[in-house]
Parts: sequence; structure tokens; C-alpha cells
Amino acid sequence: MINVRKGVAHRPVTRLGKPGHGDDEVVVEEPLEIRVAGDTMAVTMRTPGDDRFLAVGFLYAEGVIGSRRDLGSIAHCGRPGDEGYGNTMDVIPAAGVNLDIEKLSATRRGTLTTAACGVCGRRSVDDVIERCSRLPPGPRLSAVQVFEAVRQLRDHQPVFAATGGIHAAAVLRGDGAVLASFEDIGRHNAIDKAVGKLLLEGALPAAGDGAGPALLVVSGRASFEVVQKAAQARIPIVASVSASSSLAIDLARAVGLTLCGFVRGGGMTIYANPERIAD
Amino acid sequence: MINVRKGVAHRPVTRLGKPGHGDDEVVVEEPLEIRVAGDTMAVTMRTPGDDRFLAVGFLYAEGVIGSRRDLGSIAHCGRPGDEGYGNTMDVIPAAGVNLDIEKLSATRRGTLTTAACGVCGRRSVDDVIERCSRLPPGPRLSAVQVFEAVRQLRDHQPVFAATGGIHAAAVLRGDGAVLASFEDIGRHNAIDKAVGKLLLEGALPAAGDGAGPALLVVSGRASFEVVQKAAQARIPIVASVSASSSLAIDLARAVGLTLCGFVRGGGMTIYANPERIAD
Repeated sequence: MINVRKGVAHRPVTRLGKPGHGDDEVVVEEPLEIRVAGDTMAVTMRTPGDDRFLAVGFLYAEGVIGSRRDLGSIAHCGRPGDEGYGNTMDVIPAAGVNLDIEKLSATRRGTLTTAACGVCGRRSVDDVIERCSRLPPGPRLSAVQVFEAVRQLRDHQPVFAATGGIHAAAVLRGDGAVLASFEDIGRHNAIDKAVGKLLLEGALPAAGDGAGPALLVVSGRASFEVVQKAAQARIPIVASVSASSSLAIDLARAVGLTLCGFVRGGGMTIYANPERIAD
Repeated sequence: MINVRKGVAHRPVTRLGKPGHGDDEVVVEEPLEIRVAGDTMAVTMRTPGDDRFLAVGFLYAEGVIGSRRDLGSIAHCGRPGDEGYGNTMDVIPAAGVNLDIEKLSATRRGTLTTAACGVCGRRSVDDVIERCSRLPPGPRLSAVQVFEAVRQLRDHQPVFAATGGIHAAAVLRGDGAVLASFEDIGRHNAIDKAVGKLLLEGALPAAGDGAGPALLVVSGRASFEVVQKAAQARIPIVASVSASSSLAIDLARAVGLTLCGFVRGGGMTIYANPERIAD
């Protein structure tokens, strides 16, 4: 049987306490090098596929690009058949645009911009908070809409169903329509892919009236970086099936973003700005 | 009531579909800037505490330091009471040691060393695989020992019990004794803290006979980076409660490391080198 599902590979395994030996389906993990005008900016471990979206979403979250107008071409380096083809994405700025790749020079994990000159690591976080202007009020969603959005996320996780080893992120409109939905071994990558797709479609930054992107749903936890990516894209509501962190909550409160956690079993915990959710 | 548990903060929340309003316990997330001789190498989002171990384990995993003999002083920058004090750790090399901080210049997520000159992102992974020499055979553990180690990990997760939002990693000896156990919002940080502690104690790299560090247990998934950190520390067995990835499995097979996943409910899936586990 040939399995052509994207993001799934087979590996031989030995099972103890479970039936038999044989093959198992595992999630594909490969590095993606993101270059801007030929210079390496980052290497991220990701599940291959939708690499254009990932590169664009990543650069947008980092503040390296501000809109799709900054973008010229986005393409894999090399030619099909070359060794390693498909694992390097080169982003060429639009004519006359000079992207500031120095923003990334001192970062590693997290989407923090450089802290090289800061008095401390905390400075970089404060910079992120200052860079995100406050979201306008609205839209207002019902709790049922949020529950339904989280349920839909699971429906959009074919690789998780096969492997149990992948994260997912989706962006929905205020009326519940799914605008973008991606799986990736890195939960930040899944968000970057969704944001990158919507940015290329011209749907971001979100207008904030609910007619466009209104809700980011993520599997797993909502950390600082998750909230930061939503704030950067002006998506006013974030919902996760799991916990949040102190700094994620502080950022959500600072920028006026609604943060819902533990959305499961008919309940949720709202960490910030509950006024957007009608009980 | 004053809660002095490390890693836990309180934030006001609104609950829907669950009893009442009030405070919730959330995991603390703060950035840590890691400097080497004053130069910023990385900013990682972590749960404060044991920052010395985190910085040392991180630099060891990256190949920037090879042993504790490379280390001079490790201390937070500034003075208690300064704004942001405690979020920057400066590592000073031992006298006469010149640490190669360029190794990190093109990395961001993942522990990949620079791929700036590579033909593709994949090159950096191949470099990691080449850098890890093959592990010797042994030690041999019973499946029951592995189950017990995973059970113990949960016992060592007080912050998870309170917040539901944190990862854990532990390193055990072949006889089941816990040598190091840490929680952190970043699962890679939890491993770095455990490895950093053992490196400073002179217990790493592991001898491979089971008398020293024999087993790394992690909550969540075992990705490439998890296996890479174990391989770098010469810890021969990795066990996780969840799935693994294609590249993690490929690395484990390449370096002769035993990789166990889905260790739960009395069963496990062994992805590589099952000969170290006796049924």
C-alpha cells in the first residue's frame, strides 16, 4: 500500500506490550532554511509542505516584512533533483525594498527580536509589546462558536490522526468559516503557515470587525510566542485546548487580545479580555 | 495565601462552563538571554530557575562547550534589584579557552549549528549526525524500568500538576535512580537544565555502562532536537510518552541510540535499537 499522505512517513518499529512488529506511521520532520536575498536568517525544524507560507509567516511574525508588498519572489533554492532540494527557501524582497535581516541576528528560540543591546532578555519582550499597538474592540463571538472552532481544528488534523505527533493551527472568520488550517511538527510553524497564507492573500493584518480573520485556534499550549504572532497579525482572539503562560497572558492584556485556554469539555478559561466572548 | 512554588504565578481569569471567576495558577514564562563573554548568543523563553544549568546545557548541546573545563564563571548579569535582573546569564570561558560563538550565528529554532554556507538546510542536520560518534552497545534495561522511569517523571512535575502547562525531562541511572529532573515551559529547556546540571557535576558525557546517566525521559514528543541532545550527552536511551518524528528516528538509528515512544498503558513503541530493552 502506498501512502501518499503529506507529512507522514513509515519507519519499522518494535512494539512491547502491544501487538507485533512492523511499520509505524510517523510525522515527517525536516529542516527548512529560510534565506532573505541569499542570507540565512533561520533554520527551523518543520514538516515539509507549504514552505512558502511558512517562510512568509515567519518573516511577518519577526517584523522583517510588514506586508505582502515587501515581497518579490519566494522559491526553493536549487533545482528539483539536487541533493537537499526543497529544504531551503529564498525570499527576494520586492524591487526597492530593503529588508532588515539584522532583526534576527541574536535570536534563536522564540520570535524575539534582537536583544543584543538590551540590558537584559526582558528588554526584547518589552520591545515586542511596544511594537504591537492595541487592538480595537470587537468582534464578539459566542462561546459555542469558540467550542466549535476547536472541534473543527481536530477535524483538520489528518496527520495527527495517523501519527499522534503533530501540532495544528487554524484561523477562522467571525462566522466560523475556516480561512487557513495547517499541521506541523512545530506548533509555531503551523501558525506561521496559516498567517503566511493569509498575508499572501491580502487578508492580513485583520481588520478587526470579524468579517476577516477573527480567531486563531491552536493545539497545545498558548505561549508568549503564540499570542505575539496573533497580535502581529491583528487577530483579536486566540483559543487553545491547553494552558497559557504568565507572559502570554500579560501580552494579551497589554495589547487587548482575548485569550481563551482549556477550551474543552464544554468549558473554557478566559485569561484576558473576556468581553469578546458571549456566554 | 502566599504561593511560593517556583515556576507558578497567579492571574485573574473568567471561566465559562466551569465554576466561577477568580485566580488561576499559570506557569511562569520569561525570556533568558544567554551571553558568552558578553556577546548575546540566544534568547530562550523559559521558566525561571536553574538558569545556570540551562545556559550550560544549551551551550553543550550546541557544541559551543565540550566539557565543564571550558567554563569559567556563570552568573546572572547585573545586581539584584536592577530592572530585569535574573533574565540574562553571562558565561565566561575558562582562562585560555576561546569559545566559538559563531556556531550559533545562523540558527534560530532547533539546535542546528550554522547552515550559512551549506547548500541547504539539510546540510546542518547532516553535520549534527556526523558530529555525534556512534554510541557503544549497552546498557540493557528492562521494559518495566522504562515504564517506571516515565511514571517517576510525572511524580517530579509539581508545576504541571498546578498549571497543566509545562514540560518535564529527567535523566536516570541504569538502576532507576533519578540523577536530574526539571520542569520548564520549553521542553528543550527542561532537557538543557538536566544535562547542564549533570555536566557541571562531571557526570557527562555518560560512560555508557549504565552506572552513570543511562536514560533520558521526556514529556511530550521526541523530536530530532531531543535525540540530538541525548546523543551529544552520550545518554544511550530516550523514552517519551508521546510520538517521535522521522528525523529523530533516523538520527537515533545513525548514532545507535535506543528510542522509545508512546511509553504508556503498559506498552511502548521502540523506533530504534530495541536491543537495549528487555521485554
